Amino acid sequence: MARRGIYPGTFDPFHNGHLDLIQRSLRLVDELVVAVARNVEKTPLFPVEERLDMIRAATAGLSGVNVTSFEGLLVHFAARERISVVIRGLRAVSDFEYEFQMALMNRKLKEELETVFLMPNEAYSYLSSHLIKEVASMGGSVRGLVPPDVEKRLAEKFLR
Amino acid sequence: MARRGIYPGTFDPFHNGHLDLIQRSLRLVDELVVAVARNVEKTPLFPVEERLDMIRAATAGLSGVNVTSFEGLLVHFAARERISVVIRGLRAVSDFEYEFQMALMNRKLKEELETVFLMPNEAYSYLSSHLIKEVASMGGSVRGLVPPDVEKRLAEKFLR
Amino acid sequence: MARRGIYPGTFDPFHNGHLDLIQRSLRLVDELVVAVARNVEKTPLFPVEERLDMIRAATAGLSGVNVTSFEGLLVHFAARERISVVIRGLRAVSDFEYEFQMALMNRKLKEELETVFLMPNEAYSYLSSHLIKEVASMGGSVRGLVPPDVEKRLAEKFLR
Amino acid sequence: MARRGIYPGTFDPFHNGHLDLIQRSLRLVDELVVAVARNVEKTPLFPVEERLDMIRAATAGLSGVNVTSFEGLLVHFAARERISVVIRGLRAVSDFEYEFQMALMNRKLKEELETVFLMPNEAYSYLSSHLIKEVASMGGSVRGLVPPDVEKRLAEKFLR
Amino acid sequence: MARRGIYPGTFDPFHNGHLDLIQRSLRLVDELVVAVARNVEKTPLFPVEERLDMIRAATAGLSGVNVTSFEGLLVHFAARERISVVIRGLRAVSDFEYEFQMALMNRKLKEELETVFLMPNEAYSYLSSHLIKEVASMGGSVRGLVPPDVEKRLAEKFLR
Amino acid sequence: MARRGIYPGTFDPFHNGHLDLIQRSLRLVDELVVAVARNVEKTPLFPVEERLDMIRAATAGLSGVNVTSFEGLLVHFAARERISVVIRGLRAVSDFEYEFQMALMNRKLKEELETVFLMPNEAYSYLSSHLIKEVASMGGSVRGLVPPDVEKRLAEKFLR
Repeated sequence: MARRGIYPGTFDPFHNGHLDLIQRSLRLVDELVVAVARNVEKTPLFPVEERLDMIRAATAGLSGVNVTSFEGLLVHFAARERISVVIRGLRAVSDFEYEFQMALMNRKLKEELETVFLMPNEAYSYLSSHLIKEVASMGGSVRGLVPPDVEKRLAEKFLR
Repeated sequence: MARRGIYPGTFDPFHNGHLDLIQRSLRLVDELVVAVARNVEKTPLFPVEERLDMIRAATAGLSGVNVTSFEGLLVHFAARERISVVIRGLRAVSDFEYEFQMALMNRKLKEELETVFLMPNEAYSYLSSHLIKEVASMGGSVRGLVPPDVEKRLAEKFLR
Repeated sequence: MARRGIYPGTFDPFHNGHLDLIQRSLRLVDELVVAVARNVEKTPLFPVEERLDMIRAATAGLSGVNVTSFEGLLVHFAARERISVVIRGLRAVSDFEYEFQMALMNRKLKEELETVFLMPNEAYSYLSSHLIKEVASMGGSVRGLVPPDVEKRLAEKFLR
Repeated sequence: MARRGIYPGTFDPFHNGHLDLIQRSLRLVDELVVAVARNVEKTPLFPVEERLDMIRAATAGLSGVNVTSFEGLLVHFAARERISVVIRGLRAVSDFEYEFQMALMNRKLKEELETVFLMPNEAYSYLSSHLIKEVASMGGSVRGLVPPDVEKRLAEKFLR
Repeated sequence: MARRGIYPGTFDPFHNGHLDLIQRSLRLVDELVVAVARNVEKTPLFPVEERLDMIRAATAGLSGVNVTSFEGLLVHFAARERISVVIRGLRAVSDFEYEFQMALMNRKLKEELETVFLMPNEAYSYLSSHLIKEVASMGGSVRGLVPPDVEKRLAEKFLR
Repeated sequence: MARRGIYPGTFDPFHNGHLDLIQRSLRLVDELVVAVARNVEKTPLFPVEERLDMIRAATAGLSGVNVTSFEGLLVHFAARERISVVIRGLRAVSDFEYEFQMALMNRKLKEELETVFLMPNEAYSYLSSHLIKEVASMGGSVRGLVPPDVEKRLAEKFLR
């Protein structure tokens, strides 16, 4: 039976650290669902549909990747989709504690859903969507840190 | 002379990790004041009065516990109430640094008020009021993580 | 094609946190090699052969588990055995940094071998082989922390 | 050629930990630019001009200090001002990770601008502008934690 | 009933951070047992009897302090001595994890023995017996970091 | 007046993370003393003289670098050599705490000697002399992690 994993996030915007983690995840699972969390309370830079487009463009060449969005609890979505593995990236100690808290809560809510942590390429260890937005909004170059399509969309937002 | 301690917090809502810490605190002090900080700038889920009710219901069977609220600096309230010990829980490294910063500031403001740190039961190491609210708001079960009375109040808020 | 993983360690002795991690790993890989590192310079409590026996006894009921030992670099052994995933447990921040350093070095030595991190059951978050030995050597009970067979072997070592 | 450094921050308000770091920095560089980041999105307690006045008053006796403000990316401002060193204080592990993320991004944006980290006097290890504001707003004394001029300005804000 | 606490350690040698913690502990308990762990495997700088002398000299003016030594598990000694509270100092994140591991193991071995953590004066946050020995052995001054009696004993060891 | 810095260490062996830090240090000081600590109690892989040769070979092309060794306390050596700045690399949280403890002790011993921390290139964030020795001793390649001369010396030690 195929092993299905999920890589959940907000991806606002998608960057090369995310892409690196997706490529690594494909060594662990047969199908990977990259899932944008629809969180109605936040004020994202890019709407969910545009984020889905970005991720689809960046992962077009990878087989086994399925890009979608979800609402509500991750454990409920994972159960409906017959997903057994949640994949998360760990870059730093501060990630570690937040991620462990979430993973323990998810384990309490659904014991059989296992969370695994992967380490991104160290060249991306300092990347975050927040920092990408901050640099791009002040006119800094994010070339090499995001896929070309995302670089263009950020330029359209900020450089007019 | 009786040793009086204070366990300050926002308790929005009160959960089983808080209850565990109160029970442990009673091994250290003769009277424990559980004190809800009235912070007018925040937008809590439950008003202060409802939080006081929750804590009183959960601690009804424990002798030596006094539930109240306070405004302003903790050190001023503690001095007025002849309290000599502040009790705080430590779950993780991120707690540790924030708590130490607060404790050092409180020590600067009032040298004779000692802050002590207790370790909650590891079954509650991932619990936080924030996470409880997030899970409950998305329809997840928080049974076993909060007292029954709090579980009912969360259901009334979110499950209609 | 079957996905093969390796769970390397010294396991001196094997404890219930190790067993928990093996059970979780079997959700990720089709075959799991539990591999005792033969490190000639250390002075272990139990010889490698006895550690292999302990692990085999504790994992006898689990299908897909293969218990063995190895010498030299993990990446060389993994390549010979056609293993694509290294599994490690993460309990604490101090683990995190050591494990990341090792994982980055292994990635440098063999890019296609991916290290994944799992979180043990929080009931075992404080367990380590070192602490088990310390407690047992001073006459403390380790019941519930190690498999029954390991408990018996520790008693034979220390309680005469 | 004179070595020029920059100590960037929001300084809302300036406190004695900042002053300590400026004095230490003057051992490393010939000229130090203390630069208030003009960040239009925040709601500061003191406007930028008042913060510049505070810093100028506190550093009046130090030669080689130049107080100014800047907008946009630090790396762009530093390049225009022929600055080669960014100085940052490190107090705690949580500082460490945020500061490293920023420093790595700045290095990516401008390789030749080096970030160096200094350790404040441990007497100020718990100080932060946020905590100063919180204590002062609730009527606590911040004497000895901020320069006298800042203490007076805080009193005017909060103690009427 | 009097509340009895224990402050266990190796104290090789005793320093001013230890003394600070003992003074703080006396706010929490009526009697404090300062207990040197007799650990036969280590090679201490000072024999246990000399360490007991050092601690007795430094705490002579404090009422409620009882200096002794113990062998075996702390929880067994505490039970024999009707001690209900273990006191430990926390200086840094690395302390935190080791101390929590020990405290959780002790809680597993004896649920009713509570471990509490205190924060030393920040002036002593960098002190450790190991560092004291290293500095003294290379001819550095440890005045102000250890009691005068300990300073003299270190000088006798190293400065001849 | 020329600013003199010191980069102390054991360098057993010297690796590319050390070299990266030396190059960064030359942006801060006019002369840099790379100083091998002669610590008679350890059992190094390479004798001090061979380590000095390695560092001299690797830094031959850099002007302003002076390679030497020292015994005793760093602060005493620095005072004799009219050095005002100690340079240390920070890679991880565990480094951070140890380094801060050392730097605070050095500040206590000699207030005017300032310690500054630099961040190595992230490509070397996982490197340590200990790990280099471990990999080389088990036949792994360290090409690209150490200077060619060090690679050759390691091969002579281990690959016969």
